[in-house]
Amino acid sequence: MDNPQTAGIKTVAMSSVREQVYMVFPNDLNSNDTVFGGLIMAHMDRLAAVVADRHAGGVTVTVSVDAVHFMAPAQRGDVLVMHAAVNRAWNSSMEIGVKVEAEAIGGGVRRHILSAYMTFVAVDASGKPRLVPGLQPETSVEKLRFEEAELRRESRLRHAEDLKRLRGNLQR
Amino acid sequence: MDNPQTAGIKTVAMSSVREQVYMVFPNDLNSNDTVFGGLIMAHMDRLAAVVADRHAGGVTVTVSVDAVHFMAPAQRGDVLVMHAAVNRAWNSSMEIGVKVEAEAIGGGVRRHILSAYMTFVAVDASGKPRLVPGLQPETSVEKLRFEEAELRRESRLRHAEDLKRLRGNLQR
Amino acid sequence: MDNPQTAGIKTVAMSSVREQVYMVFPNDLNSNDTVFGGLIMAHMDRLAAVVADRHAGGVTVTVSVDAVHFMAPAQRGDVLVMHAAVNRAWNSSMEIGVKVEAEAIGGGVRRHILSAYMTFVAVDASGKPRLVPGLQPETSVEKLRFEEAELRRESRLRHAEDLKRLRGNLQR
Amino acid sequence: MDNPQTAGIKTVAMSSVREQVYMVFPNDLNSNDTVFGGLIMAHMDRLAAVVADRHAGGVTVTVSVDAVHFMAPAQRGDVLVMHAAVNRAWNSSMEIGVKVEAEAIGGGVRRHILSAYMTFVAVDASGKPRLVPGLQPETSVEKLRFEEAELRRESRLRHAEDLKRLRGNLQR
Amino acid sequence: MDNPQTAGIKTVAMSSVREQVYMVFPNDLNSNDTVFGGLIMAHMDRLAAVVADRHAGGVTVTVSVDAVHFMAPAQRGDVLVMHAAVNRAWNSSMEIGVKVEAEAIGGGVRRHILSAYMTFVAVDASGKPRLVPGLQPETSVEKLRFEEAELRRESRLRHAEDLKRLRGNLQR
Amino acid sequence: MDNPQTAGIKTVAMSSVREQVYMVFPNDLNSNDTVFGGLIMAHMDRLAAVVADRHAGGVTVTVSVDAVHFMAPAQRGDVLVMHAAVNRAWNSSMEIGVKVEAEAIGGGVRRHILSAYMTFVAVDASGKPRLVPGLQPETSVEKLRFEEAELRRESRLRHAEDLKRLRGNLQR
Repeated sequence: MDNPQTAGIKTVAMSSVREQVYMVFPNDLNSNDTVFGGLIMAHMDRLAAVVADRHAGGVTVTVSVDAVHFMAPAQRGDVLVMHAAVNRAWNSSMEIGVKVEAEAIGGGVRRHILSAYMTFVAVDASGKPRLVPGLQPETSVEKLRFEEAELRRESRLRHAEDLKRLRGNLQR
Repeated sequence: MDNPQTAGIKTVAMSSVREQVYMVFPNDLNSNDTVFGGLIMAHMDRLAAVVADRHAGGVTVTVSVDAVHFMAPAQRGDVLVMHAAVNRAWNSSMEIGVKVEAEAIGGGVRRHILSAYMTFVAVDASGKPRLVPGLQPETSVEKLRFEEAELRRESRLRHAEDLKRLRGNLQR
Repeated sequence: MDNPQTAGIKTVAMSSVREQVYMVFPNDLNSNDTVFGGLIMAHMDRLAAVVADRHAGGVTVTVSVDAVHFMAPAQRGDVLVMHAAVNRAWNSSMEIGVKVEAEAIGGGVRRHILSAYMTFVAVDASGKPRLVPGLQPETSVEKLRFEEAELRRESRLRHAEDLKRLRGNLQR
Repeated sequence: MDNPQTAGIKTVAMSSVREQVYMVFPNDLNSNDTVFGGLIMAHMDRLAAVVADRHAGGVTVTVSVDAVHFMAPAQRGDVLVMHAAVNRAWNSSMEIGVKVEAEAIGGGVRRHILSAYMTFVAVDASGKPRLVPGLQPETSVEKLRFEEAELRRESRLRHAEDLKRLRGNLQR
Repeated sequence: MDNPQTAGIKTVAMSSVREQVYMVFPNDLNSNDTVFGGLIMAHMDRLAAVVADRHAGGVTVTVSVDAVHFMAPAQRGDVLVMHAAVNRAWNSSMEIGVKVEAEAIGGGVRRHILSAYMTFVAVDASGKPRLVPGLQPETSVEKLRFEEAELRRESRLRHAEDLKRLRGNLQR
Repeated sequence: MDNPQTAGIKTVAMSSVREQVYMVFPNDLNSNDTVFGGLIMAHMDRLAAVVADRHAGGVTVTVSVDAVHFMAPAQRGDVLVMHAAVNRAWNSSMEIGVKVEAEAIGGGVRRHILSAYMTFVAVDASGKPRLVPGLQPETSVEKLRFEEAELRRESRLRHAEDLKRLRGNLQR
């Protein structure tokens, strides 16, 4: 449990956004009529920021994005459907899980476009990190995500070190 | 060396963009006057797409983005300065390295905002993957990146499997 | 019950969007730091169009917007939170109810910005109206809205005639 | 006559915009190549705001929009042509009439897209309503609109009460 | 008189736009709160294109812009007010005069920001130049502009040659 | 040599941007699928502003743009490639040369779209002109541009007077 005495505890439902929709426009498309990956990442960040701000009760900043794999392309005539929720909170940081699907205009079967895990840190007026409330998972899925977030965090830290070592090599 | 017989060989210099600038605007800023991470990822993708298109000689799509760590915030009054180059090409895929720095309006010391490695795949008119030219690294830095890209690719594949296993657990 | 034999019946839940968020940006603000009414109307229309498209199972167009009263201004530092659902369907038209609230970044008490009722018509590839599924209200609130939508429709038709008569006078 | 002693009197011509043009772009279009209603409402509001600001001699905010009926769709290849003028001023509020037409690129016959009446209120630096100049209609059309604006205002107030009663029922 | 037998004659009033307004937004501003010159040039071009399209009765493209001198900066809180009209037509080209002024929100004295002369050419579906109607100036100001447009055209052609010679030197 | 004692001297390389890319999007296109001239001028100004800011070491404003001739149209599927550099500096003003080319997506032969010379003035916090560093041309091309910039400046001043005289006539 994270900092209950200083910043309280919140549930996942208090900050999550269950269904955010975005109709794809012509300017969002590559020459082969699939949506630019960067557009999807920008929407993903803006949505996750609202969720992180809600959990933190104030402004947060993106500090990292886990490896993102595009599983299927979104296309002309699609509506992006996005979900975002806090998976776990540490001292001043939170892991936000985002899932992006696509459905055709008019609805129907949704295709899975990507899932990603983003880390945000709460900052005060001077830009310094500040404590955030702990997270109280309630459902079995939330509890599973809560446990796995700790594994992902360790994997992230290891991966960050791997990258740093590789980049260190690179810049010699 | 990748597919020299079918698609030729290109050097890094033939497709790289050495200095792309973007002046930060009020709409790009969080409430604490730092630039949204998603905006930077969108710029990063659009720039990398031009480089990947050049190396492939046609349209490409983003298939993955390695773990992205924001090392310092870009702020009001900054100009983003971005570099992108192909690090290695395989059959139909390419790793593009992107570095984003920030300088104050009027220039001066640059701060390192983030580095990221993105993977693009070349597609034909029906959206199917197609062969791309091999990459001929020339300078010692390019040769180092060429070698390390193979290590990163293996780490990516392992990391993708880790994520898949974690997500598999998550979705039970 | 509307056209069950030709186009089936759908529930409200099949098409509604319960929580769409939009963080207010500097460009959305008047000189006195309140959000332009037109921006809110544009978001309202884009969200309602997704809901109408889902109910109709294809493209729809806006045909009217009921009188819109702004009850409180949205401001710098707000996140708009929007809900939209089908209230009733007739032959080729649907009434979509939209509610817009505002919460401060970080969450907290929501202020009611406006509620509006919009009418959409489903169109085929040549732009001609086409039948839409009937609506099956399930909850008591949905049943109440279903009944009131008929009253609003009559009021709309009367109001449209009033306006037409006034405009007729105006253009003599 | 409204507040001549405190805020002066202005004519319609002093604030009206007779012809505002906007070329339709690909991003403004639905899947069936007609312009989104919300885009038109946003342009309508931004234009009316300039007119209201001019009459008031300072910042104003949108407080209501009368029922809007789209009479014909604007399409790819159209130029929107908009007119806006003050119809009447009360203590701190003004009715602005807006007419939107569409012409093909290259000009030609204009189609009537919609007419709407919007109400704006002048606000001071603290966001409180403040007096606006009275309106002096000059032409016979302006005088007719001036008279009818009073009827519309009464209809608006009645309609607002109808809506409030309906919504009151709805929220029980 | 230009091509009366093939393309007819039009007056200035048939295509001109007398008052196009644009409220300056935060994203339009430099760090010193003045409007980017490029934004004003973009608005100027989009407005002049509508006027040229109207005179030509179809699509036109910008071929040149005369020397543009910014006489005063537009600023935060300003509304740009633009006028555009055809000054003269030749075989397939037209000179469009554009004047940009700025007024404070709420109106008041207008400051002259810039005047510019742009040349457009009418093109057919294959992008080839096509004849445009001649211009019939009616008022004394229109007649003066009509005469001077010929002088400006000669000056433009001379100036283009000067530039070409300078650039020729430059590229040796 | 300009003001070495007060503001120092900089080389061309210290501020130039050698390759700025922009992929053309659907919203940037005319009905005949060529890029709006105004869009290109806006990009040209934003790029040149970064270069001028760097040379001046602070905020600058556009004061004039030399006659711009579009030599070939940029089209759907093109990437704009832009270069910008300081050609000469005077007391508080600088001439920035900009070249815009277009290449197809995937690269290949570049077409010359336009070259333009823009003048910027450095301003202090109160908007008053302030001294800028002198320019030290290094390569033979830079030295040629440095010499020719003086000729262009004289031509600009003469041309400005010509325009002023013509406009003076016009406004009688």
